[in-house]
Amino acid sequence: MVLKIADMMKTVKEKKPLVHHITNYVTVNDCANICICAGGSPVMTDEYEDIPDMVKIASAVVLNIGTLNDRTINSMFMAGKAANEIGIPVILDPVGAGATRLRTRTAEFLMDKVKISVVKGNAGEIGMLAGLGGEVKGVDSVGIASEDAAQTLAKRIGCIVAATGETDYVSNGKKTYILKNGDPLLGSVSGTGCMACSVVGCYVGACGASIDSVAAGISAFCIAGEGAAKTSKGPGTFKMNLMDSMFALTPEMAQKALKIQQ
Amino acid sequence: MVLKIADMMKTVKEKKPLVHHITNYVTVNDCANICICAGGSPVMTDEYEDIPDMVKIASAVVLNIGTLNDRTINSMFMAGKAANEIGIPVILDPVGAGATRLRTRTAEFLMDKVKISVVKGNAGEIGMLAGLGGEVKGVDSVGIASEDAAQTLAKRIGCIVAATGETDYVSNGKKTYILKNGDPLLGSVSGTGCMACSVVGCYVGACGASIDSVAAGISAFCIAGEGAAKTSKGPGTFKMNLMDSMFALTPEMAQKALKIQQ
Amino acid sequence: MVLKIADMMKTVKEKKPLVHHITNYVTVNDCANICICAGGSPVMTDEYEDIPDMVKIASAVVLNIGTLNDRTINSMFMAGKAANEIGIPVILDPVGAGATRLRTRTAEFLMDKVKISVVKGNAGEIGMLAGLGGEVKGVDSVGIASEDAAQTLAKRIGCIVAATGETDYVSNGKKTYILKNGDPLLGSVSGTGCMACSVVGCYVGACGASIDSVAAGISAFCIAGEGAAKTSKGPGTFKMNLMDSMFALTPEMAQKALKIQQ
Repeated sequence: MVLKIADMMKTVKEKKPLVHHITNYVTVNDCANICICAGGSPVMTDEYEDIPDMVKIASAVVLNIGTLNDRTINSMFMAGKAANEIGIPVILDPVGAGATRLRTRTAEFLMDKVKISVVKGNAGEIGMLAGLGGEVKGVDSVGIASEDAAQTLAKRIGCIVAATGETDYVSNGKKTYILKNGDPLLGSVSGTGCMACSVVGCYVGACGASIDSVAAGISAFCIAGEGAAKTSKGPGTFKMNLMDSMFALTPEMAQKALKIQQ
Repeated sequence: MVLKIADMMKTVKEKKPLVHHITNYVTVNDCANICICAGGSPVMTDEYEDIPDMVKIASAVVLNIGTLNDRTINSMFMAGKAANEIGIPVILDPVGAGATRLRTRTAEFLMDKVKISVVKGNAGEIGMLAGLGGEVKGVDSVGIASEDAAQTLAKRIGCIVAATGETDYVSNGKKTYILKNGDPLLGSVSGTGCMACSVVGCYVGACGASIDSVAAGISAFCIAGEGAAKTSKGPGTFKMNLMDSMFALTPEMAQKALKIQQ
Repeated sequence: MVLKIADMMKTVKEKKPLVHHITNYVTVNDCANICICAGGSPVMTDEYEDIPDMVKIASAVVLNIGTLNDRTINSMFMAGKAANEIGIPVILDPVGAGATRLRTRTAEFLMDKVKISVVKGNAGEIGMLAGLGGEVKGVDSVGIASEDAAQTLAKRIGCIVAATGETDYVSNGKKTYILKNGDPLLGSVSGTGCMACSVVGCYVGACGASIDSVAAGISAFCIAGEGAAKTSKGPGTFKMNLMDSMFALTPEMAQKALKIQQ
């Protein structure tokens, strides 16, 4: 049975889920805009006192450790716990895990202390967190995404894991989907991994966290990337077109363009 | 007598006012760029020790609580007091007031302790601060901008209030202007409210704070939005075109395009 | 002998240097993207504990004081010392030095306590730090770049100094190159100075710090600006085209377009 990306996209656009981000200051604006273009409503706040009130009205929480610090690590922990209490999904983007000890430890800490619904990382990050090795140079993966790593980590944590790269793998520990949409230009723009994570936030926020909703979010983003690449002359035009393409993507177009091996 | 937007725009472009922002990290880059395109010179600094020196050379101070925290709330207070001392206008953007207690309380605190010249918010934020209710979901208003709310808050605080939405209301507590420029695409880009506030900063910085200069700033931004929308395919192209359109807008074009009910 | 910009550009693209930034939240996203487009790999992290691990795998460290605070000033000092220990170049962008005492003092502090390889600033900043005067309004220079200032500061600090403006001067204290590439639109976009510094980070990271590699980085960026301007309607399209143009620039094109007086 093929992934019902069209149905899930309709649900996202109807529900317009509020996605609460604690994220990095490098790509935060692009995350906000792609979230709007995907049909969600973004909010970013990382101050202790502000978090419980904001989580209460959110549909999902995205934790991205791209420019982590002492203060925001605590905020991520608090937001995660608050989300757990009211039962909304938490998505973790372990940016740079494997590259530095603080990042690896923070990802492990959050996976240990918070019930995470989805971990989305690049091949190197997921490989490292799965204990299967991998290489992370700064915040870029040097390896290729591996089915094994996604499945192993999903089993260990008991959540959905997405390992992204030229091919994306989404696993719940039992079965693994192989996603083939995308374009090389996605690798030439800073923060496309973070943006994919925000789109996943919209999908799990509106449809609940499952291997299907995570795969739908990632595929929708990658399909938007394919559309954007057609009229782009480089990373600058591509980033702009990516927003337009995500905004214009219809459920029918997405269903037709979907390349998945389930 | 029709609003003299052309004259005020000329003054902005001649004086090139330095607008000191303490703002959020989500939309800060767009605020800096729209400020330049509108004819101003942006500066962003939020460290205690840096504030007095920077305020001293500024023409206006914009306080935006979009990603407030303990440290920056104190900085906003300090920058506001420093601006009051030398007599330059302070513009408050109470992002998300009404959505969380910290945001509502911080907006109230700044309105109480600092002499604010202009409050610019969306319908929900202004409604909440005016004590007339309203709904704020994250940082988005769910209501429609109301003349009553703008006028009530303006009277209470003794300042100019702008409540933005499909229609914008600008009030000094006695009279209220109704502004009809704009385009729906402004609602599909993160931070257009923040950007409008930066443009208002340029206008009150160059022309002094009055119902006229605030209305001129908001109208100039909305007219730029109308121009940008004409050649945009979605939120991505629109945001880019918005900068070009603001940069290319002449006093004559603005005066001709102005839709205002005074 | 003409500057071998083509050879250095090839080296950058081959080595793909990891450039570690501690920078401001206003222009950080543009710095990350221009770094990718120039052939480097950007990473941004400013948390104490994260710095030593990240510096260890980096090829260069960029310190930009655009939105400095107590925490990040310490981080910059630490990153600088860590870079000195392993012998990779440190590039300082003293944003707003001369405009406030904190900025001037911080730039002086970093130049005093860290072995800086390159200082890149606008005319006003370099003039002030050289002790020759200059004027800095917010973060914008009001003066014109001066050969004297670049040479004087280079001699005093014992490093390479780049003073940018309509004409750019790059000096090692003994000889000074005069660079004539660029376009006025570079002055209408926030953060082009920061972006130039990130590109310099790529060049000194890949080729070592020398008057030649600094001049090559600045020239490459300015040549990309010339290409971008050709098809731009204003600052919005220009910023987008600047990324495409930097990405598309080939060593041969750069060598041919280079305007330098050595």
